[in-house]
This record gives sequence, C-alpha cells and structure tokens, in this order.
Amino acid sequence: MPTMNVIIDCDTGVDDALALLFALRSSACNVLGITCVGGNIPLAKVTRNTLAMVEHARRDVPVYQGAARPLLAAPITAEYAHGNDGLGDIGFPEPQGAPATEHAVDYLIRAFMETPEPPHAPPLLITLAPLTNIALALLREPQLEERIPHIVMMAGGLTGGNTTAAAEFNVYADPEAADIIFRSRIPKTMVSLEPIRRDALLDETEVAQIEACSNPWCWAMGRLLRRNLIQLERLSGRHAPISPPDLAATAVALEPHLATTENRHVAIETRGEHTRGMTLVDNRRFRHLAPNAAPPNVAVVTAINTARFQAVVLEALLHDL
Amino acid sequence: MPTMNVIIDCDTGVDDALALLFALRSSACNVLGITCVGGNIPLAKVTRNTLAMVEHARRDVPVYQGAARPLLAAPITAEYAHGNDGLGDIGFPEPQGAPATEHAVDYLIRAFMETPEPPHAPPLLITLAPLTNIALALLREPQLEERIPHIVMMAGGLTGGNTTAAAEFNVYADPEAADIIFRSRIPKTMVSLEPIRRDALLDETEVAQIEACSNPWCWAMGRLLRRNLIQLERLSGRHAPISPPDLAATAVALEPHLATTENRHVAIETRGEHTRGMTLVDNRRFRHLAPNAAPPNVAVVTAINTARFQAVVLEALLHDL
Amino acid sequence: MPTMNVIIDCDTGVDDALALLFALRSSACNVLGITCVGGNIPLAKVTRNTLAMVEHARRDVPVYQGAARPLLAAPITAEYAHGNDGLGDIGFPEPQGAPATEHAVDYLIRAFMETPEPPHAPPLLITLAPLTNIALALLREPQLEERIPHIVMMAGGLTGGNTTAAAEFNVYADPEAADIIFRSRIPKTMVSLEPIRRDALLDETEVAQIEACSNPWCWAMGRLLRRNLIQLERLSGRHAPISPPDLAATAVALEPHLATTENRHVAIETRGEHTRGMTLVDNRRFRHLAPNAAPPNVAVVTAINTARFQAVVLEALLHDL
Amino acid sequence: MPTMNVIIDCDTGVDDALALLFALRSSACNVLGITCVGGNIPLAKVTRNTLAMVEHARRDVPVYQGAARPLLAAPITAEYAHGNDGLGDIGFPEPQGAPATEHAVDYLIRAFMETPEPPHAPPLLITLAPLTNIALALLREPQLEERIPHIVMMAGGLTGGNTTAAAEFNVYADPEAADIIFRSRIPKTMVSLEPIRRDALLDETEVAQIEACSNPWCWAMGRLLRRNLIQLERLSGRHAPISPPDLAATAVALEPHLATTENRHVAIETRGEHTRGMTLVDNRRFRHLAPNAAPPNVAVVTAINTARFQAVVLEALLHDL
Repeated sequence: MPTMNVIIDCDTGVDDALALLFALRSSACNVLGITCVGGNIPLAKVTRNTLAMVEHARRDVPVYQGAARPLLAAPITAEYAHGNDGLGDIGFPEPQGAPATEHAVDYLIRAFMETPEPPHAPPLLITLAPLTNIALALLREPQLEERIPHIVMMAGGLTGGNTTAAAEFNVYADPEAADIIFRSRIPKTMVSLEPIRRDALLDETEVAQIEACSNPWCWAMGRLLRRNLIQLERLSGRHAPISPPDLAATAVALEPHLATTENRHVAIETRGEHTRGMTLVDNRRFRHLAPNAAPPNVAVVTAINTARFQAVVLEALLHDL
Repeated sequence: MPTMNVIIDCDTGVDDALALLFALRSSACNVLGITCVGGNIPLAKVTRNTLAMVEHARRDVPVYQGAARPLLAAPITAEYAHGNDGLGDIGFPEPQGAPATEHAVDYLIRAFMETPEPPHAPPLLITLAPLTNIALALLREPQLEERIPHIVMMAGGLTGGNTTAAAEFNVYADPEAADIIFRSRIPKTMVSLEPIRRDALLDETEVAQIEACSNPWCWAMGRLLRRNLIQLERLSGRHAPISPPDLAATAVALEPHLATTENRHVAIETRGEHTRGMTLVDNRRFRHLAPNAAPPNVAVVTAINTARFQAVVLEALLHDL
Repeated sequence: MPTMNVIIDCDTGVDDALALLFALRSSACNVLGITCVGGNIPLAKVTRNTLAMVEHARRDVPVYQGAARPLLAAPITAEYAHGNDGLGDIGFPEPQGAPATEHAVDYLIRAFMETPEPPHAPPLLITLAPLTNIALALLREPQLEERIPHIVMMAGGLTGGNTTAAAEFNVYADPEAADIIFRSRIPKTMVSLEPIRRDALLDETEVAQIEACSNPWCWAMGRLLRRNLIQLERLSGRHAPISPPDLAATAVALEPHLATTENRHVAIETRGEHTRGMTLVDNRRFRHLAPNAAPPNVAVVTAINTARFQAVVLEALLHDL
Repeated sequence: MPTMNVIIDCDTGVDDALALLFALRSSACNVLGITCVGGNIPLAKVTRNTLAMVEHARRDVPVYQGAARPLLAAPITAEYAHGNDGLGDIGFPEPQGAPATEHAVDYLIRAFMETPEPPHAPPLLITLAPLTNIALALLREPQLEERIPHIVMMAGGLTGGNTTAAAEFNVYADPEAADIIFRSRIPKTMVSLEPIRRDALLDETEVAQIEACSNPWCWAMGRLLRRNLIQLERLSGRHAPISPPDLAATAVALEPHLATTENRHVAIETRGEHTRGMTLVDNRRFRHLAPNAAPPNVAVVTAINTARFQAVVLEALLHDL
C-alpha cells in the first residue's frame, strides 16, 4: 500500500505549526501541498509561517496562498495567542522560499479533479483552519463534492465553543464556509474541542523527551510545546497538560485508529443571536424517533486514545535519528 | 422556621402530576396556589388534570388558568407522550371542583406584590412548564423583578435538548418567554435535562416500594411511575431507570441540599435557524478571560444526589401512614 | 345614531397632544379612556402629558398607565423631538389630577370584554404609539381578538420608515407587539407615513386661523403647530407644510370619509438585520397570482383628502365659540 | 473615443435574450464576453440560449459557463415565465458552437485583472442575473474590488419586489452574492423594478416597427417582444405596454443619458423572515441627520426617459439595413 497522500489547509499559528512539523515528519503520509487561509493570523503571516515550517522541516512541499477573508463574516483573528510572529516568537528564521503562484483554491480544484495514477488514491484533505478555501473551491467547482474522498477537520465542539460560549474558532471565523462543507456530501470527520481537551494530552514527560532530542525538528517542536505548557499554566493558575487541537486532528487523520467516532448529524448555525458558528450535534437520546431528526452527516470523534496519541507524536518526531 | 410557601406553574401531563403529588404531600412546603399554562397538552386538559391532582391529594389549593398559547411562537404540544387524558390513562376521576376565576397572571402578580405577614417570606416559584405565565406577569408588572425571591425551573439543557437537537421542550415551546425570565434579575435555579437524566433516577426498587404502599397517593404515584418505566423500556429497547424531570426539579426546589449548582451565564437563543429555544450555557474553560463573556445569571444544577433524591421522594409518599 | 365611543392609546409627545386635543374637542366622538405607553418619551412623562392635555381640554376622561417598556425590544425614545417637557416646552401647567389606579392593560380588557348597553357599540381603538399595551391585553385575554371591533393605527410605512430606512417609530419601538396585532384577526386600518406626509398637510393658512382664535384649545393647538412648522423649516432648510401623523390618524379614525384605503397583506418583520420593525406591504402587481401571497389583513390608507382633513381639524378646534 | 467594451453576465431567458440582441447589435458597445449563471432557468439552458443569441446575432463573442447554484441559498428558477426552451418557444435553432472551456469566474478575474491596451479602458460590467458569478470572482480575487470600473445591474426594487413582497428575483435568488457586491467598493448603478415599469415602456407602436423590419435580428426581437405583450395582456386582463427589465438595464448601461440617478445607501437584507433578498434603499427625508444612516453606495436609477429609451432600442435594431 502506498503512503497516503494528504493536502493540508491551515492558518499557521503555533498550533498549526505543531501539526505541520508532525505531518511533514510523519512516515504515515506524503504531504502534496499546503494551502493557506486567513484565520488565527492574517494571510501574509500565515503564508510566511507555513513556508518557515516547510523549510525548517527540510521538505519540498508547495505552499499556496488562498483566501484572506471569510466568505461573508467580518474577519476575526486570534493573534494575541500566537506571539508577535505568529509562531510563538521562538526564533524561526524568515523563510527563503515563496508561495506558489497558483491560488490555493485553484490548486485544490486541480488536485482533486485530476485522477491520480494508480496505485495512488486521491489525497486526504486535512483542515486546521476556517473552511473558506475549501468552500470557495466547492462553490467554484461543484464536482469536488464527488471528488474529495474525505476531509478530516479540526472544527467545532460537541457541546460548546471556545471563541464564544457556542462556537469554536475555526467555525466561528467563517460559519457560511463551514455550512457549505457540512451540508456537502463529502465524507468528513470532525475532531472537536471536547475529545481533544480530554484525551489528546501532552505533558512534562512527552515534552521533555522531545526537548531532549537533538534534531532540529525536535528543537522546534519542543520549543513550541514548552511555550504552550507555560502559557496554559499561566492561564489556568496551575500546571496542566496541553492538548494542541491541530496536532490532535492531524494525528487522528493520519492514524485513524487513535480515535473512536460516532456518526451524527451536525448542523452549522449561521443565524443565531448567541449561537452563530455553532456546530450543533444531534445527541438526543431518542433522535431516531424524532420526526425532525436529520440523518448523520459527520463522523464525530468522541474519544482519542491518549497513550497511542502520545506514542504517534513521539514516534514521528524521534524516529530514525 | 415556618414551612416554605411555594407557587407551582405547570402544564400538567404525567410528569407534572408526579411533581404535584409529591409537592402536595411533602411536609417541606405549603403550596399556596397552582397556575396552569398550555404546554405538554392544551390548557383545558392542563387545568382539568391539575384539579384532579389537587383533589386526589385531598388538598385545598386554588388552581388558576393562565395562558393558552405562547407569547409569539406557534403552539406545540407533546400529547403523544401523556396518554389520552394527559395523565397516562390510569383512571383518575374527573375533578369535581373548578379553577379560580382569577387569571393565573393576575394571581401571580397579586401573590408576589403583596407583602406576606411575618414570619412568612414571599413564596418560592417553581416552574414545570413553558414560562409564558411568568413572562406575562413580568411584562404586566415589572416590579415583580424585585419581588419574586427565587424561581426554580425545570428548563433547558446544559449541552443540548430533547425537542430539537438544541432545545428542551419547556424553553422551545416559548423561547421569548424564557428569554424574558432569563434576562430578568430574579434569582433563578435551572434544573436541566442532563443532571436529571444522569442522577434523578427511580428504578424498580423505588417504584415497587411505592406500589406496595396502600394509601391513595402511593396508588397514583405508583401507577404513573410504572407507566413511565414501561414506556421508557419500550423506547429504549431495554430496561432502564426513569428520571422524571418535573419531579426532580420540584424535589430540588424543596430540598436544595439534593443538588450541586454552579453559577453560569445562560442565554436563550430565540433567532437561530437550528438553535431556537436553546439554553446556551457559557461553559468555556477561560470564560473569565473572554472579552465577550457575560456575568453569571443562573444557578445551574450540575449534579443531583441520587440516593437523597430517592429518599426524599419516598419519604414524602410513604410518611405518616 | 349615538356618538362614536373611542379609546386612545398614546405616548404623548407633541404629536399625540395634537391628536388628543383634536379628539377631546371633536363632536364626532366620545373619548371613554386614554391609555399611556412608553414610547416617544418615558412612561412617567407620557402620563403627565396626557393628564395635562385632558385637563387643558377640560374633559373628564380617565387616563391609564400601561407598559413602560416594549415586550422584548430594548427601549428607544425620541425625546429630542419633543422638547424638555415632551410637549414642546410651550408652558402647559403641571396636571392637577392623577392617572386611574387600574392598569391600562386591565382597563383595555375590561372595556372591550364588557358588552355595551344598546344602542352603544364597543368602542373604536385608536393607537398612536408602540402597540405594547394592546399586545399585552391580547396576550392576557385572547378573546379580545373577537371583541375589539376595529383598530385605527398610526403605524408603519408603505415603502420605508423614518426611524430606520425600513421602519417607522411606532413599529420599530416594539416590533413583536406590532406582529401580534397585525397577525390577529382584529379588523385594522393602518395610517402610515407616506399618505400622511403627502396629504395630511397643514400650512400657514390653517395654523394662522387657529392662532387667531382665542379659546384655550386653539391657543394650545396653535402653539404646538407653530412649533412644528418652525422645527420642520429648520430641518428642511426651507418652508414646508407640516403633516402631524397622530393627528392625521385620529382624524381618519373619526372621519373615515377622509381616507382612501386598499386591503393589503402587511407583515411585520421582526428578524431582519436591516429591516427589523418594517411593515412589509405586499404591493406586487400580480400578487393575486403569486403562490406565496398571503391574503389581505389590513386596510391600508393610500390617500387622505387634504382639504377635508384641514376642514375637519379646523371645525373641531373652532366650533361653537 | 473607442467603443465601450462590456462584459455581460446573464441567465438567458426571454428578457436576457432581448438585452443580448440589443447589446450585440448596438454600435455603442463592443461585447467582449458573456458569462452565464443559473437563475431564471438552469445553467445548461442558460448557456444554450446565450450561444443561440450570439449565433443569431452573427457575432463572434465567447460565452463562459459559471455558477449553477447560488452561494448559500436554495436554488430557485422562474422557468414558467420563459417557455419550454427558455426563449419563449419561438423557434430559435439549437446553437452550433460551444461555450469556452474557461470558467466564467476565471474569465471575469482574467478580464478585469489584465490592464487593457490604451486607449481601451477596462470593460463595463452589466449584470442581468443573480450576482453569484461576480461574487465568486470577488471572493476569489479581492483585487477586483479596485479593478472593476463600474457595474450596471438589473437588480432589486426601490420599495418592494416581484418574487416576494420584499424582493426582486435577481437579488432574492442569491442574497448573499448581492450582499457581497453591494458592500464592495465597486462603483455601481442599480436599475430596479419601479423606474423600469413606469418608464422603460415598449408598446404596439414600437413592437410593430420592429416586426415590420425584415432583418433576422428584428425577426427575433419582434417575436420575443410580441410574446411579452401577449403574456402581459393575459396576466393583466387588459392591454398594457411591456417594460423588459434586462433590456432596460442594458440600454441604461450603454446610454447613461437615458436615466436619472440618485446616490443612495442600499443594504441587502439576508436574514429577514419576510424580507430576505430585499434591496433596502434609504429614502428617509432627513437621512442626512439620522445617526444610523450609512453613506450612499449605489447610484439608484429613479427615472428613465421613455422616448429616448424607445429611440435607442429601435435605432439599435433598425440601423444600417
């Protein structure tokens, strides 16, 4: 079986950087291309940081610039959480390369509309950001609905959010884009806040192992993880393990055995006064009897195996040194 | 200390009937009046059933008819769940009495605007139904906001609903009324679906004890509980304990030590396409740091002590016989 | 034929004052009661100004206080337009009397639920304000829907608003109340901005005639109208006739021959981002063929006979002196 | 001065066909390309009909296929109004040619992003359809906001709609797309229902002149116009002049002296329960004093010179024969 091809869509702040380092180092996948979208930080910084990660990982993967703004929503960012350079200010050098001239949306359409040479399958799509690029690709080329084999998304919450009481950042930042993706027939897996926070834990033990390793990937990963540990301790007022969402979603995408999923109907609320951007999961006990219940449209991750998650992350970082 | 005075607002189907029997029998409170509202079943049946319960309990408590319809929403009912007579068709006789001529809303205003004779305190308000009557009273007499000392509500969900994926019946049936109450300054406790279903359990043991008792209250209670057990088993496809929401909320109201609460901000969504009628609880981890976080406005019940709940219910039913 | 009985609901600023003076002086009607609601100015000032008008008109008409706030909307006022005392600061003395102790909503229910002694018919209801009181009465006593024979409302616009681009003040101030009234089966006539502004004109000639008359009603009316003329000239930058909306609606109510009406469907928009509070009139050319057209629910005034309007106003003010 | 270059976006039913025949024959412009979008009829028919018009007009203008569906709205069509073939079933032959392989959105981006050779200016954009293609182009290439010099749109109403009481077809069919265009900084002229219906009239005299002319353009135009006259008479129950909206908007675009315009703020309502798809024009008398007034963003056509409109249409059809 050939290595799985993946395309990653991201808004590279600290958390995406962890995921990119992991994916670019992982032997479980071959990253065909990375598409950038405005989100955590403005698009120009996203692109720079993505290039910086690719170069730091010593990979030759093209980086594509996509949408700078959501479809309809007013743009929001979360720059405060990602440091001045959007990468935690830990000293990544400016990248030498440049993004591809092709627009991310055009690249996505081309990548999924062309039939891969056997034995390759069409790539898996991993999204770590607002879904603007993917929605634009789908609006521009509706046949993608039949051509994208699977999207694994860091998106939403099972019961609430982080940016508002109802909504998680990636969905809140572009609810209409999320609505287009969630209503599409593309098979999709949603890795959301609750299982990540409960299960996708990294603590002193794991971070120290990475820090103790001398390769440049471990250096970067260790610095970023350490920063997250310190930041969380400051916010919480006590020590607690971190659970980087984009890293968790990427690990689940590359190693599906890490996660337990259930098929659920998930609706995107775009109108609510308090609930705009919510991923409303139908968890009703007797939903199969409910006259207004819609059929499941998403494989919702309900649990992640913590030990396996840690092993997969460490293995990717520490292997063949 | 005098016995606590309470007023109960209900839409008497099976579940309210359990709560009324319990409250009317409990030595912990003195039921001053019962106000009826359209909800589970139409208002005329609600009134008849409420009178039937009062007469069955051999109490002389006035029953007031209130709103037949929600403020703005189209009326919904849940008659299918409550049997043909709305009381599980277990053979309660038609009541002999009649409701008071005073309208429920006028009664509520009068009851809370008058200053009680010491040592009595103003009554506690327990709501087991859509909040239409209470909202109408508050709209008609805004000073109630300062006069109602506390509302304990069977209302909403912490993370989702039962009538829709987002909304619980009592809130969904009249979201605008709920919005008025939740935005008011009246101190309030919300007893919602999740802690009730997890904790306020009655099973074969408890039901059998009640059935074994020969007084008429136990006869009624036992028949209603047995019906619920059978119905739940049919829906679930397996035996499971029941957790009657209105009974649980009433028990928590009369015996606050049964419950653990946390102060949270709860917003009522009235606009959403998918989330209308949702009680959106702000459970964000770092909500105290969130720039858009509103201060807590509700004591949200997070847990109910199962053993104590069962003891309180049994004690009320079986005492002094 | 007996004189027509009317009840007037108002939020007495300058414009309502004109209407009240006119109605209280008119031989075409007998004002049974006046109900006050928060609107143009806060409720306390509305009540004071209404009492001042009744006393100035030397009539013995009871004044009832109603809702201080809209059903659900955040309160807005338009005090800037009505002067410091809400009556144009022209020197009306403080009233000597007090409002009735009965609440306006209770009065409305009582007045319309009782069957009048023949040959009297139930009173006509004239509303010059946000429809909060009327909606509350209808919510509290749904039978009013069959008992109120006719409402004539100063409400809405045919094509746009004054408070926002979409919405007229009385509807915008409480859209949910308006929605309740417009969806009710009560026969209703809507006197809206466009025909008033185009047709219900008073200019120098009319105002001078009133000013020239020495009775106290003319004194008050003349001062208020003169103030409006000056204010409009200041706003417009040129002289233009005034068209007092509440006076026009009251004149149309008392003298229906003044107006041309067409039956139209009017919907109240409560949700729009830009159109909340709009009275959406279905004016489509082929609406009778439209599959989504609702049947007419309102008699919409499309034109007012200017000369007759002026004659009716002057006659009421100048008669029998 | 060189002939004005234009690009036309349309959903070719009967009315667009009239506009295309006119524009392709007019000596006032040079049609660079025509982009098709789903709207009046499904995209495949739109494309076929557009090709048929280009071939019938004996022009060599590329036709581009664009979006088959709106951004977010459920698709609606108005096929009933356009006959079985969408062109009034008057016997246009199937086109011989095919659309360009380039997608309409890509063409629009290319056409407006390239700097034209002097003395040519960037083309004028005329839209006769839902604004989906234009919005997609703007989402994909935000720089278009600075590059499109002017859009003339058949869109919206000044006071109401035709598809709903509030909304005109082109805006109602894709309100979010319209919102994107109306909020953009692109200079725009809105040719809406009311001035078209009142002023852009063609009657027996004009239609007979066209029918009397023997060239193939007149044949087609005459047949289509005659069909409209008959259809309108059937709907109205009496003879009345027709006022083809797309033809009127195109005439105004090519000959701006036909129209009177006023600068107004126009907001697109996307949320309303009754008003979704409305073009809300701020026509308030004292809007310059209103604290909530937004600055003008659209040149709104308020009148069209009927005689000049007729002359321009006839001239284009009958010239140089």
